Amino acid sequence: MLEELKERVCEANLRLVREGLVLLTWGNASGISRRDGVFVIKPSGVPYDQMKPEHMVVVSLETGEVVEGALRPSSDTPTHRELYRAFPTIGGIAHTHSLYATIWAQAQREIPPLGTTHADYFYGAIPCTRPLTPEEILSDYEANTGRVIVERFATLNPQHMPAVLVAGHAPFTWGATVEAAVEAAIVLEYVARMALETLSLNPACRAIPATLLEKHFFRKHGPGAYYGQPGSSSSAS
Amino acid sequence: MLEELKERVCEANLRLVREGLVLLTWGNASGISRRDGVFVIKPSGVPYDQMKPEHMVVVSLETGEVVEGALRPSSDTPTHRELYRAFPTIGGIAHTHSLYATIWAQAQREIPPLGTTHADYFYGAIPCTRPLTPEEILSDYEANTGRVIVERFATLNPQHMPAVLVAGHAPFTWGATVEAAVEAAIVLEYVARMALETLSLNPACRAIPATLLEKHFFRKHGPGAYYGQPGSSSSAS
Amino acid sequence: MLEELKERVCEANLRLVREGLVLLTWGNASGISRRDGVFVIKPSGVPYDQMKPEHMVVVSLETGEVVEGALRPSSDTPTHRELYRAFPTIGGIAHTHSLYATIWAQAQREIPPLGTTHADYFYGAIPCTRPLTPEEILSDYEANTGRVIVERFATLNPQHMPAVLVAGHAPFTWGATVEAAVEAAIVLEYVARMALETLSLNPACRAIPATLLEKHFFRKHGPGAYYGQPGSSSSAS
Amino acid sequence: MLEELKERVCEANLRLVREGLVLLTWGNASGISRRDGVFVIKPSGVPYDQMKPEHMVVVSLETGEVVEGALRPSSDTPTHRELYRAFPTIGGIAHTHSLYATIWAQAQREIPPLGTTHADYFYGAIPCTRPLTPEEILSDYEANTGRVIVERFATLNPQHMPAVLVAGHAPFTWGATVEAAVEAAIVLEYVARMALETLSLNPACRAIPATLLEKHFFRKHGPGAYYGQPGSSSSAS
Repeated sequence: MLEELKERVCEANLRLVREGLVLLTWGNASGISRRDGVFVIKPSGVPYDQMKPEHMVVVSLETGEVVEGALRPSSDTPTHRELYRAFPTIGGIAHTHSLYATIWAQAQREIPPLGTTHADYFYGAIPCTRPLTPEEILSDYEANTGRVIVERFATLNPQHMPAVLVAGHAPFTWGATVEAAVEAAIVLEYVARMALETLSLNPACRAIPATLLEKHFFRKHGPGAYYGQPGSSSSAS
Repeated sequence: MLEELKERVCEANLRLVREGLVLLTWGNASGISRRDGVFVIKPSGVPYDQMKPEHMVVVSLETGEVVEGALRPSSDTPTHRELYRAFPTIGGIAHTHSLYATIWAQAQREIPPLGTTHADYFYGAIPCTRPLTPEEILSDYEANTGRVIVERFATLNPQHMPAVLVAGHAPFTWGATVEAAVEAAIVLEYVARMALETLSLNPACRAIPATLLEKHFFRKHGPGAYYGQPGSSSSAS
Repeated sequence: MLEELKERVCEANLRLVREGLVLLTWGNASGISRRDGVFVIKPSGVPYDQMKPEHMVVVSLETGEVVEGALRPSSDTPTHRELYRAFPTIGGIAHTHSLYATIWAQAQREIPPLGTTHADYFYGAIPCTRPLTPEEILSDYEANTGRVIVERFATLNPQHMPAVLVAGHAPFTWGATVEAAVEAAIVLEYVARMALETLSLNPACRAIPATLLEKHFFRKHGPGAYYGQPGSSSSAS
Repeated sequence: MLEELKERVCEANLRLVREGLVLLTWGNASGISRRDGVFVIKPSGVPYDQMKPEHMVVVSLETGEVVEGALRPSSDTPTHRELYRAFPTIGGIAHTHSLYATIWAQAQREIPPLGTTHADYFYGAIPCTRPLTPEEILSDYEANTGRVIVERFATLNPQHMPAVLVAGHAPFTWGATVEAAVEAAIVLEYVARMALETLSLNPACRAIPATLLEKHFFRKHGPGAYYGQPGSSSSAS
């Protein structure tokens, strides 16, 4: 079973490259096997054009230690682990420095829902964390990055909001599967770009009404969804 | 005859992808056979790389019901139907969330004609609908989206203005054929981007004079057109 | 000899597409044979993927009439003719609606020389014409477009300034050859984009000093040029 | 040994094209052999699609004269030479007119570190030189360009800051190898674009705290680095 997960995680990482969301060796995606108590993640700093499923690293959810794999896992592994532990319904995570999502993270502003494209995937404004304190940066930095995300989600449902901006850093996205996490990263980037330009065109633009937000989100997600084909496994249907 | 229309509609949908106007499974194009009282539209949520002419869905113009096809039609089908019923001269419709056209829709602003590129295809400002009311969103949402478009065109000629922005949502375009509808979507996106950047460079920029607008539109459209080759069937000639 | 010119003009038109400067069937490039008193230009409205050298149209410089070719020439042919007549040193012309150059034309602002990239090709601000009068639009529009360009160059040297913005319309570029005209169109688009974004970043930014402008322009052009290889025929060396 | 360096320098120049950082024949990259007292650089004005390792030009570090190669070296060769002489730890240099880095150079503003992407490669604001004086432009221009860079680095460590903006011109980047110099050019362009858009979205945005800047830079560089695989030769690990 982990062989299949390694293939899927490897492919998900390569898709981030094809979609133009990562540069050089940046970015990482992971997928979890809750039954086995492990998640599979990209190795650190390996060129994408040489990356194969067997390079994926298997990490224990409980201890954070590598349980299989010859390479060092992504330096962001402790962040992934914090998210998997705090959000039991998610099955995959993606991290990129994609252009426009990172711009919002640098600006330390949440992304307001300015249209139905946003509402199709994100049920409300996409939140931004607080900056980490110097202490949180100096010790256990990557795990603390996960902890400020979890703190920000105290009153948010990660199934309704599959993305976050880490202040001064970049986005993380997630979903029921690693494929859904990558899809959320793709849509986040598109929505982030549109929101930035919409506010540049009309600085007075406000969030769409709650009724329209709800209509679009639940048209695609949850028991009343009617987008896509019946029984389709797409995260968006 | 519907086999040919299915092929053309399928190809028109794939062209939206190649032109960079749709992401994931978003967007849809349709074409109508007025003689048969049906239109052919893309199925909902099917990946573009697997889409074939036989997946297209045939829908009755009168009843809105599927008359042929194994898949569920695009969730925006009722919007297409409203437009075909209200605009008897159009033969095809395209809907995208293309970046810059959607930005104008989110900003809820019409696109002013700032240059001859705009005038070559759109005879005046590209209109934006009013927002839908909560009642219109909660019941029969997709048909009501079509109805607010039709309402906005009370005093507009859809043959002279083959595009609209739905407030808070995205654009719809149309034309004599499904190919013309896609071409209008391509040009709309280009014009939308140029208008946004033109106003950023020169906020005082105003619409071009009516004489220039008329000259360019009717150089390409109608009985006095002299762009292109004689007898050419291009929507732009 | 015209066969070679037709090939070069056809290839120059196709290069405009490859460089992303034209959409659909827009844009046109031409080259002149001064000895034969004719210029060769793209046909009007023909799809680029079907365009071949034998489709090029040969037009008389003196009368403006087609002297060879089965297709109707570009609708902008009279503009090209005016420029060839007024600027005896130029050998080729390109016209595009490329994104950023057109944005400056729509904004009706000349492009100031904000850096050495600009100075490498354009010796000063890239000028913008006045708008055409209603009378100039209603009668002999395309020739009048050429005439307002020529009027704007009353005190400019077309060899030092191979580009112009037509107010509310788009750019024309030229050079010693059709290849040089296309190269000027490529650089114009790049310079136009950089200037727009530079002014957005620093609205107080001013033109570079005359000494730097001169240094860069004449490093690449004229008898003292030392860029490129000796004897190279590149327009930029 | 120089054959290998010529191949690497040629490949580095071609990578600048593939990454979209240079247009036409612009841009140049070089690598040095400190042992031999020479550096290898791209020839001037040669089309990239015809460029081969044997076209690379070998230049003496001490005299600036060509010691091998049939073609004229890049016109920016004296700038490279000044940098190699002043910064003894660097092994390669790249010069581009990449879009957003050049925009910052034209705006004559340093690029503030607004996020961790910046901090991963550049330890502080990316500096901008002063403009050259008319005298510096008129005589020995390219060497003087190198000298104002060196002047700007009086209090900066080129190993911690592998990039500079030349006011009114464009960026230079460097690194331990020519490959690292090209990688710095790639990241600089990305960071420059993000910084411009971040300030457009939030003009009040300030540099990230020193603790975060240090954390990210030294996570990837120097003896305490833990990004990438142990023993990896990547400049970023």
